[in-house]
Amino acid sequence: MTIQPTDPVQLTADLIRCPSVTPEEGGALVLLQGLLDGAGFACTRVDRGGVANLFARWGGKGHAKSFGFNGHTDVVPVGDLAAWTVDPFGAEVKDGFMYGRGSTDMKSGVAAFAAAAVDFVRETPPEGAIVLTITGDEEGDAVDGTTALLEYMEAEGERMSICIVGEPTCPDEMGDMMKIGRRGSMNAFFTMTGKQGHSAYLHRALNPMPAMARLMDRLSSHVLDEGTEHFDPSTLAVVTIDTGNPATNVVPAQTRATLNIRFNDTHTGASLSDWLRAETAKVDAEFGTRTELVFKISGEAFLTPPGLLSDLVATAVKAETGRTPELSTTGGTSDARFVRHHCPVVEFGLVGKTLHQVDENVEVAQIGQLKAIYTRMLRDYFA
Amino acid sequence: MTIQPTDPVQLTADLIRCPSVTPEEGGALVLLQGLLDGAGFACTRVDRGGVANLFARWGGKGHAKSFGFNGHTDVVPVGDLAAWTVDPFGAEVKDGFMYGRGSTDMKSGVAAFAAAAVDFVRETPPEGAIVLTITGDEEGDAVDGTTALLEYMEAEGERMSICIVGEPTCPDEMGDMMKIGRRGSMNAFFTMTGKQGHSAYLHRALNPMPAMARLMDRLSSHVLDEGTEHFDPSTLAVVTIDTGNPATNVVPAQTRATLNIRFNDTHTGASLSDWLRAETAKVDAEFGTRTELVFKISGEAFLTPPGLLSDLVATAVKAETGRTPELSTTGGTSDARFVRHHCPVVEFGLVGKTLHQVDENVEVAQIGQLKAIYTRMLRDYFA
Repeated sequence: MTIQPTDPVQLTADLIRCPSVTPEEGGALVLLQGLLDGAGFACTRVDRGGVANLFARWGGKGHAKSFGFNGHTDVVPVGDLAAWTVDPFGAEVKDGFMYGRGSTDMKSGVAAFAAAAVDFVRETPPEGAIVLTITGDEEGDAVDGTTALLEYMEAEGERMSICIVGEPTCPDEMGDMMKIGRRGSMNAFFTMTGKQGHSAYLHRALNPMPAMARLMDRLSSHVLDEGTEHFDPSTLAVVTIDTGNPATNVVPAQTRATLNIRFNDTHTGASLSDWLRAETAKVDAEFGTRTELVFKISGEAFLTPPGLLSDLVATAVKAETGRTPELSTTGGTSDARFVRHHCPVVEFGLVGKTLHQVDENVEVAQIGQLKAIYTRMLRDYFA
Repeated sequence: MTIQPTDPVQLTADLIRCPSVTPEEGGALVLLQGLLDGAGFACTRVDRGGVANLFARWGGKGHAKSFGFNGHTDVVPVGDLAAWTVDPFGAEVKDGFMYGRGSTDMKSGVAAFAAAAVDFVRETPPEGAIVLTITGDEEGDAVDGTTALLEYMEAEGERMSICIVGEPTCPDEMGDMMKIGRRGSMNAFFTMTGKQGHSAYLHRALNPMPAMARLMDRLSSHVLDEGTEHFDPSTLAVVTIDTGNPATNVVPAQTRATLNIRFNDTHTGASLSDWLRAETAKVDAEFGTRTELVFKISGEAFLTPPGLLSDLVATAVKAETGRTPELSTTGGTSDARFVRHHCPVVEFGLVGKTLHQVDENVEVAQIGQLKAIYTRMLRDYFA
């Protein structure tokens, strides 16, 4: 009996037809669990806080050579349904493209790595383990998603030695980019206080506006760094200054500002907080104002330094596409920010031009290519 | 028959009892007209736009030696009536102070100059004219008040050679200050536009916040002047910056700011507008932003240079109080800003500590002193 290889295109279509808008499971994880069970994976649902998550392992628990894949089956909402020209959950194929919410982000990616893993263990059972962590909460708060899976693994002695996150990473052509890290992101909230007074008698007041202008000019003008080997220069954006004083004959007692910093591995949230506190204290000393500062650090910068893992990805991509993927740290957040605390992680997936958009679609040919790339990574890793 | 001198304290009390909250005449101008008519003044009501105004002249129309007094009988609202410890329109006298809305601002001043004028023409009829312009709209929009009276005079060939505005001018002690001019005031409204974008991709956006911070810092840091012989230094106050951007991952397209300038005779509204336009254009050129500027010039700086008129006032004040009044240009606006287009004008009145406040009150003794000072000015002027 010849076993047919798993078709990642069909699997992508089946997953798109599961309406798994966060936090709905929508049948997607059940579908995957059926497939993985059938291939000998030990599957466990790790549901938490109303979110469904699937842990699947082939091979020995905690094996020193465990290849991990991470992805999500939840999708963002359809948005303006009337603007769609196709059924968002129909998986319709037109002119070589498959349409549907989640077609690029990232049901095709999950389908590709699940199909690759299932076929690989059937055809060439490796010496080691393959671990799949698939969450239903990446697009939402991400509190009970990959984090829950990693905490489960920690508690159960499960492990991944390395991990590929299957998010779409290529900006233009299949294979043109992988992500080996991300910039950190933080917000700082300034509330600056002086003393209210009449515009005609400034010496009796303490207008916080000049101090705020000076501080925001200084912070905006400061060059945080020139970029590092793998990171773009850090950026600082004053996103708002608000005072709400309608009276031109009154100088206000207080004004507020918010800024956002995207920072590379030159900095940490703590080092930037210290710098902001020091700059603010200088201006307060110059003007006599008092400023309260609140920080919210959304994520620290992280990097999986180029090496074995990125080489593994690059070799597979080059072999299947002829392209050498750029090692990038650009873009927004992904669950790699959680996985990186567990093991070295790289993100690689297909072209993500239409993610979160109306008429989201994926080039059908790329799904097969992606499965082939993931398969080659497995083969090379266990060789 | 001996004619009793006119009692300015009684007249003040009578005026306080007229509830002449702008724009209500409240009986105040009718009362004054009765008094002035009886003393041989030619009285004309110059009402306009729902506002009552009184023009009164003793002596020949358009006489080259015409002494003018200007004042108002309207008062600001009572405000929180429950907070008053007396009837705001009761003119109650306690411990040497008379209480009531308008007691200092400026029914006592009007009573003092009306009493002085009436008694003076009776006792020593001068070679010349005495002109009283009394409005019911100084505390309101001031559009149909002193301006209406001056336009009436212009049309009728009436004149004042000099004019005393009887507003309370003394900060602490009777006679310590006269006002010989005022700073100008203007507002500038800035709307600065860039290009909205994502905080993580600043190179694709044009954040107007750094440009606004730079511009407001520069304008605030600029020393407009060091003051002039009779004026304090001009002041510039950024009174508000507002953006209203709630999203920390978005840099805004637009931000707004307002500033207020109080300027001396070094500047005009036009010269400051030119300067603000030039500074804004520089910052726009540096950052690539576009800024719309709107100016609102509330009043130009003006000065009645020290000379005959201020000497006349100072001599009278010194003789009656022993004090030499400071020649000041501080404070908010008054109708002197209109009168100064007609003739040299100086403001002199009593102590104005409680004006516009709850339990507004005037020291009774000062009302008599003020009448004496005004009388001495008349005597010296016509001597």
